[in-house]
Amino acid sequence: MPYARSISRLIEELKRLPGIGPRTAQRLALYIVGAPAEQAERLAGAIKEARETVIHCSVCGNFTDADPCTICTNDGRDRAVICVVEEPRDVEAIERSGSFRGIYHVLHGSLSPLDGIGPEKLRIKELLARLDHTTMAEVVLATSPDTEGEATAIYLQRLLQPLGVKISRLAYGLPVGAELEFADEQTIARAIEGRREIT
Amino acid sequence: MPYARSISRLIEELKRLPGIGPRTAQRLALYIVGAPAEQAERLAGAIKEARETVIHCSVCGNFTDADPCTICTNDGRDRAVICVVEEPRDVEAIERSGSFRGIYHVLHGSLSPLDGIGPEKLRIKELLARLDHTTMAEVVLATSPDTEGEATAIYLQRLLQPLGVKISRLAYGLPVGAELEFADEQTIARAIEGRREIT
Repeated sequence: MPYARSISRLIEELKRLPGIGPRTAQRLALYIVGAPAEQAERLAGAIKEARETVIHCSVCGNFTDADPCTICTNDGRDRAVICVVEEPRDVEAIERSGSFRGIYHVLHGSLSPLDGIGPEKLRIKELLARLDHTTMAEVVLATSPDTEGEATAIYLQRLLQPLGVKISRLAYGLPVGAELEFADEQTIARAIEGRREIT
Repeated sequence: MPYARSISRLIEELKRLPGIGPRTAQRLALYIVGAPAEQAERLAGAIKEARETVIHCSVCGNFTDADPCTICTNDGRDRAVICVVEEPRDVEAIERSGSFRGIYHVLHGSLSPLDGIGPEKLRIKELLARLDHTTMAEVVLATSPDTEGEATAIYLQRLLQPLGVKISRLAYGLPVGAELEFADEQTIARAIEGRREIT
């Protein structure tokens, strides 16, 4: 490959990003090299600044640049309902839905014995400490509906049940706007199990 | 959105990259913020360094960090055959196919009257100067097989024909309507082997 050494190096770094394959990395690198200098400068600066200023909220574990984060310090949030998620991006997804007014706890992962990720690698100790210090009305387990998320939710359910707190899970069912005929069997089965009476 | 300001800024900068939509930008930003500090540092450094050190080869116009570039100064290349391409990424694509041993000329674009890109915006003057100074056996027109690439090839064909040099086009083994850079190596190799003289 007759790439300039600095282009090859940029391609290598871009390839480390999730979902960026060799071709995309090459396309992005050649774009960056041909882009206005200020744009490349701003992108590099934004990466450095974000990585240097963003920390984990010491309360909920979400990404923030002020500690505690804006959700944890928001008096309008219901501190009696805590939603447990795997990753900061899950907080974003739930916030976008605008349907949750409680607070969060980010585990930073899910149980995955095959990858050597046990409970001690997740922020479960911190969750227990929070539940210990406050009277919580409800813990919403909002882990992902995949194998690891399921395992994590079941583990937490067993761990938290002795505390006597109400524990809930996000509903399984048909995604809004989807066609029934294209839903997979498991989803349809869950949607039927979880059907609600219309009154 | 309760994003930290520096994350929002990073998302905005990532969204300016080609093919990176809002969701991908968000995913990449959250990954970068959670990645090891050295990795974010290296990525930012690679972007800056590539943009600062990479220049256009004064001979062929390709990206390089030494002028003239390694292809232009390579004694093993056939200087009697020149391949005219739209972009540096097209040089890469042809080099990957391993089927061309001549030299290149990068136009940095293609004719697109609707976007206000006429011949004067491309490196056509430079191409004519090169043909003037050297005895060229063949000019291979390797513009993309799309409307702008076709128009550019036809324009160059008319311009170069009076010079009496042999002019060829890549064979239509390339899928019509696609971009050259996304063609696989085998297809590019076939297209180079099957190139035809334009009479």
